[in-house]
Amino acid sequence: MKPEQYLFGCAYYDEYMPSSRIDKDFKLMKDAHMNVIRIAESTWSTWEQREGEFDFSSLLNMLEKAREYGLYIIIGTPTYAFPSWLSDMCPEVLTETSSGRALYGHRQLIDITNETYRKYAERVLRKMLDIIKPYNNIIIGYQLDNETRSGGAMGKDIQKIFAQQMKEKYKGDLGAFNLEFGMDYWSNKVPSWEAFPDVRGTINGSLRAEYKAFLRDVISEFHAWLKGIIDEYRTPSQFITHNFDFSWVGYSFGMQPEVNQAQAAVSCDIAGVDIYHPTQESLTGAEIAMGGAIGRSLKKDNYLVLETEAQGRPSWTPFPGQLTLQALSHISSGAGSVMYWHWHSIHNSYETYWKGILSHNLKPNKPYYELSEFGKFMEEHQEDLAYLNKTSDVAMLLDNRSLTGIDEFPLNGEEAYKGDSEYDYNHMMRRWFDACYRMNIETDFVYAEDDLSSYKVLIVPALYSASEATISKLREFVNNGGHLILTPKCLFSNEHLKVYHDDQPHGFTDLTGATYDQFTIPQSVGFKGSLHLTGKAEGIIEFYSPLSSAGGTVLSSYDHPYWGEYAAVIRKGTVTTVGCILDEHDTSEVLSDVLANAGINIPDASFPVIVKKGINRKGESVTFIFNYSMEPADYVITNDCKDLMTGDACKEGARITLSPWGYKIYLGT
Amino acid sequence: MKPEQYLFGCAYYDEYMPSSRIDKDFKLMKDAHMNVIRIAESTWSTWEQREGEFDFSSLLNMLEKAREYGLYIIIGTPTYAFPSWLSDMCPEVLTETSSGRALYGHRQLIDITNETYRKYAERVLRKMLDIIKPYNNIIIGYQLDNETRSGGAMGKDIQKIFAQQMKEKYKGDLGAFNLEFGMDYWSNKVPSWEAFPDVRGTINGSLRAEYKAFLRDVISEFHAWLKGIIDEYRTPSQFITHNFDFSWVGYSFGMQPEVNQAQAAVSCDIAGVDIYHPTQESLTGAEIAMGGAIGRSLKKDNYLVLETEAQGRPSWTPFPGQLTLQALSHISSGAGSVMYWHWHSIHNSYETYWKGILSHNLKPNKPYYELSEFGKFMEEHQEDLAYLNKTSDVAMLLDNRSLTGIDEFPLNGEEAYKGDSEYDYNHMMRRWFDACYRMNIETDFVYAEDDLSSYKVLIVPALYSASEATISKLREFVNNGGHLILTPKCLFSNEHLKVYHDDQPHGFTDLTGATYDQFTIPQSVGFKGSLHLTGKAEGIIEFYSPLSSAGGTVLSSYDHPYWGEYAAVIRKGTVTTVGCILDEHDTSEVLSDVLANAGINIPDASFPVIVKKGINRKGESVTFIFNYSMEPADYVITNDCKDLMTGDACKEGARITLSPWGYKIYLGT
Amino acid sequence: MKPEQYLFGCAYYDEYMPSSRIDKDFKLMKDAHMNVIRIAESTWSTWEQREGEFDFSSLLNMLEKAREYGLYIIIGTPTYAFPSWLSDMCPEVLTETSSGRALYGHRQLIDITNETYRKYAERVLRKMLDIIKPYNNIIIGYQLDNETRSGGAMGKDIQKIFAQQMKEKYKGDLGAFNLEFGMDYWSNKVPSWEAFPDVRGTINGSLRAEYKAFLRDVISEFHAWLKGIIDEYRTPSQFITHNFDFSWVGYSFGMQPEVNQAQAAVSCDIAGVDIYHPTQESLTGAEIAMGGAIGRSLKKDNYLVLETEAQGRPSWTPFPGQLTLQALSHISSGAGSVMYWHWHSIHNSYETYWKGILSHNLKPNKPYYELSEFGKFMEEHQEDLAYLNKTSDVAMLLDNRSLTGIDEFPLNGEEAYKGDSEYDYNHMMRRWFDACYRMNIETDFVYAEDDLSSYKVLIVPALYSASEATISKLREFVNNGGHLILTPKCLFSNEHLKVYHDDQPHGFTDLTGATYDQFTIPQSVGFKGSLHLTGKAEGIIEFYSPLSSAGGTVLSSYDHPYWGEYAAVIRKGTVTTVGCILDEHDTSEVLSDVLANAGINIPDASFPVIVKKGINRKGESVTFIFNYSMEPADYVITNDCKDLMTGDACKEGARITLSPWGYKIYLGT
Repeated sequence: MKPEQYLFGCAYYDEYMPSSRIDKDFKLMKDAHMNVIRIAESTWSTWEQREGEFDFSSLLNMLEKAREYGLYIIIGTPTYAFPSWLSDMCPEVLTETSSGRALYGHRQLIDITNETYRKYAERVLRKMLDIIKPYNNIIIGYQLDNETRSGGAMGKDIQKIFAQQMKEKYKGDLGAFNLEFGMDYWSNKVPSWEAFPDVRGTINGSLRAEYKAFLRDVISEFHAWLKGIIDEYRTPSQFITHNFDFSWVGYSFGMQPEVNQAQAAVSCDIAGVDIYHPTQESLTGAEIAMGGAIGRSLKKDNYLVLETEAQGRPSWTPFPGQLTLQALSHISSGAGSVMYWHWHSIHNSYETYWKGILSHNLKPNKPYYELSEFGKFMEEHQEDLAYLNKTSDVAMLLDNRSLTGIDEFPLNGEEAYKGDSEYDYNHMMRRWFDACYRMNIETDFVYAEDDLSSYKVLIVPALYSASEATISKLREFVNNGGHLILTPKCLFSNEHLKVYHDDQPHGFTDLTGATYDQFTIPQSVGFKGSLHLTGKAEGIIEFYSPLSSAGGTVLSSYDHPYWGEYAAVIRKGTVTTVGCILDEHDTSEVLSDVLANAGINIPDASFPVIVKKGINRKGESVTFIFNYSMEPADYVITNDCKDLMTGDACKEGARITLSPWGYKIYLGT
Repeated sequence: MKPEQYLFGCAYYDEYMPSSRIDKDFKLMKDAHMNVIRIAESTWSTWEQREGEFDFSSLLNMLEKAREYGLYIIIGTPTYAFPSWLSDMCPEVLTETSSGRALYGHRQLIDITNETYRKYAERVLRKMLDIIKPYNNIIIGYQLDNETRSGGAMGKDIQKIFAQQMKEKYKGDLGAFNLEFGMDYWSNKVPSWEAFPDVRGTINGSLRAEYKAFLRDVISEFHAWLKGIIDEYRTPSQFITHNFDFSWVGYSFGMQPEVNQAQAAVSCDIAGVDIYHPTQESLTGAEIAMGGAIGRSLKKDNYLVLETEAQGRPSWTPFPGQLTLQALSHISSGAGSVMYWHWHSIHNSYETYWKGILSHNLKPNKPYYELSEFGKFMEEHQEDLAYLNKTSDVAMLLDNRSLTGIDEFPLNGEEAYKGDSEYDYNHMMRRWFDACYRMNIETDFVYAEDDLSSYKVLIVPALYSASEATISKLREFVNNGGHLILTPKCLFSNEHLKVYHDDQPHGFTDLTGATYDQFTIPQSVGFKGSLHLTGKAEGIIEFYSPLSSAGGTVLSSYDHPYWGEYAAVIRKGTVTTVGCILDEHDTSEVLSDVLANAGINIPDASFPVIVKKGINRKGESVTFIFNYSMEPADYVITNDCKDLMTGDACKEGARITLSPWGYKIYLGT
Repeated sequence: MKPEQYLFGCAYYDEYMPSSRIDKDFKLMKDAHMNVIRIAESTWSTWEQREGEFDFSSLLNMLEKAREYGLYIIIGTPTYAFPSWLSDMCPEVLTETSSGRALYGHRQLIDITNETYRKYAERVLRKMLDIIKPYNNIIIGYQLDNETRSGGAMGKDIQKIFAQQMKEKYKGDLGAFNLEFGMDYWSNKVPSWEAFPDVRGTINGSLRAEYKAFLRDVISEFHAWLKGIIDEYRTPSQFITHNFDFSWVGYSFGMQPEVNQAQAAVSCDIAGVDIYHPTQESLTGAEIAMGGAIGRSLKKDNYLVLETEAQGRPSWTPFPGQLTLQALSHISSGAGSVMYWHWHSIHNSYETYWKGILSHNLKPNKPYYELSEFGKFMEEHQEDLAYLNKTSDVAMLLDNRSLTGIDEFPLNGEEAYKGDSEYDYNHMMRRWFDACYRMNIETDFVYAEDDLSSYKVLIVPALYSASEATISKLREFVNNGGHLILTPKCLFSNEHLKVYHDDQPHGFTDLTGATYDQFTIPQSVGFKGSLHLTGKAEGIIEFYSPLSSAGGTVLSSYDHPYWGEYAAVIRKGTVTTVGCILDEHDTSEVLSDVLANAGINIPDASFPVIVKKGINRKGESVTFIFNYSMEPADYVITNDCKDLMTGDACKEGARITLSPWGYKIYLGT
């Protein structure tokens, strides 16, 4: 069951208000053409202030008023932020890491495998599900938990589950485990399944990575468990979703390392995402496109934007027009909703300066009026624009074990990355994603288990951890004629981060027509060769040489007294291998070359003019033209079409001018 | 009882000497015209090396010798540095924070509310007070503890006291507490007064701030307790003081966040301060002026300089003449004493490179000889110069809850400040204080509870936390004709850091004639308008607009494509509101404009020539002219007067030249 | 018993291989002219996976195959990396610091004084020694442990040992201890030997330094204990060694602060070292020379290079020719071996990117082939080149207590150095060592207890902690005509970091002819005077003035308005005293001046051309000329000689050209 309605609204917390003002708020929402609120995921302690004492009156009041004002409801399970009496009663619910047991206070610092936690979480959830039944006609969907984390839990109980799972995975063969994980190293050999080492202190990157994978699996299992409970209550028309978030560099940046989102999304009918990004002069739309593409990847379908910023952080206060531009950017990626976190700015506690639509004075303000205009526009055009069908010729392969692999074994071979290095997995991925984005090549994200057959080009960023099965999948893609871009650090280790002990890239040298066994960190090394590479090699140089027989063609090599013999870019057939990290220009240069080879048309327009396309529910093609810039920008119409906002016909070849942070929408291009 | 003597001396630690040499030291002190030593506050373990075994022989020896050489004594309670046997016996005396229980070693890491600590502290103190009675004629005063801290104590026992106080404050109304503190947020609602959450883990900024305020109150209570004990022993002529210190950025910088000094000073007869500051080319006198103004603010009276540096840190080794300049700068701020920390440089342990007057070789040296000259001069002129009476037309309002508020909710809305950010409370305060200082506008510091009626101009830096009562006080000041400068982040939240949910600045928009509900972080935003602002907006821009009716006059606005409509500086009547942080020049520009409006004369001389004035005990006006510079500086005499050092008459309009780091003192100007 | 064989080989870990391939590996080694492997030090958990279950089969297999292929064995005691069952059984074996008890995982995190650890370590060691007896003819030597650490152990048990030792050291006189360590300060006076303070929290720099010294002594005792066990098993021809490492700044940099290497080496027949260093354009040979000189200093004899890098870290991948240059650089310093860490790159765990000779694909590669060439060359010339006898006129004095002293009391008097400050002990030492190295003045390292009589010049870097005995030693050196360079921070405190309380430098002012009692941190202070000093004073300026009678001659003073009177460099007789840290040029300038005075010839060639000399076992002099540069370099032959590689005679005055990273070896110069 996935929602059919276009949704426009926000998270709403009556509980956080200095004094209740639901009528005033719901009236303002309706005036702004909003039709949905998301509630209840953060306030367990309001529903159950003391153990066993339930009080859902504020929830029921919200529901009653929502019915009165005609607002839909998405209701969250109140499970990710827990009341203090729970950890007072059972301290083991708090996560324990190598720094010790967490102190109560922050959300998500919970061991979601803990039985006591599960018991009380289930009880409050069932109570809530029972009590809200009368409102099932306005409750359109459920949200499982919220940005679920397993909190880096490494207490004894959860480690026992891990050890048990490892024992099962290896069918009890301890020797096989010790060998695969290289436990002999520094005398870490595991003596028995029962005396499994405490992962909190391990120096074994394979073991720590396996534990991180386990912590991701725990989330998927938790979601399935929540879904099972909800299934007992929900009506056939109510959907289940979750708001998946992203890796964070002060804003949404790339794949979320702590969740296997595609796996967790199995428990959802439709994926939800929350996307936060810089604005003002730093607004590019790239995070919206990245987050949207991940949103589409999870169910191979449309997705909901369950959270995005209205005002957000102080540095994000939007320029006039940017809120509209951002909202349409979400829509153009195939979103079915635009929902803000949150309605009102909070007066206490922690996120006081993560501002909602309304400022702290709770009055209509510039963001409110701009969103009202957008609301009106979308209300009229939802059938034209919401839930667009998106297709692409180009895909990028994402892999969480590889992300962990690069964290554990960073390019410079030194300290593990702490999640925000210039050359971590997501930054390497973003180089290629952003190059596509800026060239107006819309891309999909795919996972190793997906069907790749519909794509002409597959970009493989930093697939450090690749099982034999994944490698076979890539071989098959190439053997079927697909164009592949293999970037540095690919196919170096297996799924347990055990480095392959034959020629790199493992199982692929016949297709790359090249191999290497050494690499280094470049310092001011440029390029020579047929590609027009103007920058410097970054991060790593893999010393690729063509195979002596059936070797690839070197397109570019290094301008260096000793490494001039090595290939920076080498091609054999449809496989293009890149041996170093390239800057923005050079990444685009390689990409253009591959796209041309694959017969993919590269649009004339490029960033800051962004073009995004889809097919609407009526079967019409829709084209959005966005200007992510302080300056006006020109664009030349590529097909006869109709301007959605004016209704005017537009001719191919006509030159239009977009205002700063402006946009155009055309039907039928 | 406050002291009448001008005091010149130092902290003295016979206990730290490689071998006792009291005679030699006291002889040298007398030769340098010193008349006082401060002793005994750091050496409990010397008086009571093992529990219950008291040995005050070294103390008695010091007192006997002091009597012999004619030195006054200020004696400290030996309570802030405790012996190891105390925490061995009762580990709970050590502070416990979210990082765990402190290890024994450092001073001040003690829970001063702990009953065991109090019991043993009282015993050693009473023993000491008993034993020193025979010397009451040379003991002129007592120092309560030393730079008292509550050590961030967050153990169970002290948290119980806090919870009990909160219960009393809210008269048991848990709902009112939960609402005021916004505890519903992230499910932190408190279930009962008995199950109050552990503040060590809280994410609630209001709660953490309240706990910090509680920790400040604890210090005041502790001082009152110590005073109560001393009162049983002291003679009517013996005063009580405390050496209050300042926020620290490698030197004394601003208001001390961990102590409510005005409240704690209730237990003192006279306030004491310790002031440390850079020297050499970085010597400006600003910290001396700031610390002195805070010293005066605590009892609305003169103050003692109980500690300042002689040589101090390696980077502070003074240029010739600077020690004299510094000492006179203290005197010119109204100090009754100049006392150094400390007599001799220490040969072991921790502060070995915080050098005293004597270097490690314990011989007379350049600082000693320079101070001897100063000592002789002051001995002759103490009635002319010590305990000056100071008055000012300009005051700045200080508030510790606002300081905490800015720490908890920094301007950029991100990570809490750790105490030394460019835009924390004290840095914002110092911008205005320093502008006054450099323009030779001497300022007082005041607190919300003070009488403001004597001031023409009140500068209000970053008064983030303002109760309704405080706001009324400010309104009254304005309504009585006072000129007010309202800076960014003012009147935004109440005393519990709950943001006001109406128009900002709360309760003041009729007086500012302007309001805002959005703000952002400026990036290279300049100014336009009638004021001559040449720099860039820093830290924050509050989007002030004049009210549509009875709105203020915009003096300056932003030079920005989207924010040009907002006021940077706006004035209505006598209220001047500034919406962003200004650089040094622009702060002075606004200040000059306000002072001119208030009819306050701005001296011609400005930094590095500093002019400080007061009325001496004879009722004469005294003017100090200081040259804080490597270069000679000219100054024009503003009134007929007499040169204190030469006795020569000086005529108005005469031009004099100050040598580098030089000074002049005039009577009768 | 020290080895006679020239050794060429590597560390070998069959245990870490993805699958066993000993035959293939040993064949490759023999083909590369290798003759030795180092084994067994890291894999206790392989020999004893579960407590009491021994399995040495893989060890025996390696030994059997080594015999078959004719490889020598150096076997390590498997004691520094311990199995998890040991700490599961007895958590007290894990070190405990102020951060709490270590978690199992990392090597060396063990309290080597722990009795349980000793019991099980002894058992596995004796089992191993028993079982390897049949191979005593190929096992040429034993390695005690590996890079032994005492792990910062501060648990209760080891602290008891420390307190007991202190009691013995002070013959029970607690007062003497408290006085010497200045424990009165901040009330830290120790009440009794039984209630000795927990050093984890101490603020007493003397006490913490004493504990660090104790932790160094613990290592020496541990080595003696291991030696005692091995002595029961070894044959007269088997030697004992240890691989000593160095302070670490991302590579080997200076004296190892955690080991008293000369003292620990008492248990060795020959010292071993492991040296790691940057390569590519950053290869200078300085670390090889420094590490070699320390290697020679430990037994006043030749030494083994037990570990050095083949490929090492990604940034160290060598340029062609650099491996040969590096290996010969070790040989030219007097090494008897060149052994790599390690044979093969590791596929799992922690040091996966610290690459061995073979890359992860385990095939012969560029480093392998280059080392094979070197192996062949050395096999032919080992009698010409290995175990060179080295002598020098110049020595530098090293002292670990001074290193700790500078860490505890850094030059700026502020935060303790964390081991890698620009002005810590080793950096100050390296300024002088590197100046010598770049001028081609080969230097020895000596310790205070060594005989200094053979040296003409002694450089004393930052001897902060100097006992009276050490000072007498230095006086004797000077009085016997030796030339001494005294640098900043010398002779300031005694062996317990108690600052001397008379004129600095203590006990030496008659020899320096100068003293000071003040100092500061320079900011852009240059020089004037007869020496050609062109840079700025760094780190500290000690305010040296000549004594009024029998004062030294000021060679250089400061160019500063107030400090112009102080001496930067002052000389009296053969003592040259330097009062500040000098840059590279100015250090060389002072050095040249002193060497000239001492009658030492300074070679014409200088870095990047490096000249190193020794006498081979045949009694011939051997001269190495190295070019550490990307550019060709010229060199003029200084004596008639023979080119070792070509056999050609070379005439004095002949100009030769070295290729980039090239070298020449001459006999008879």
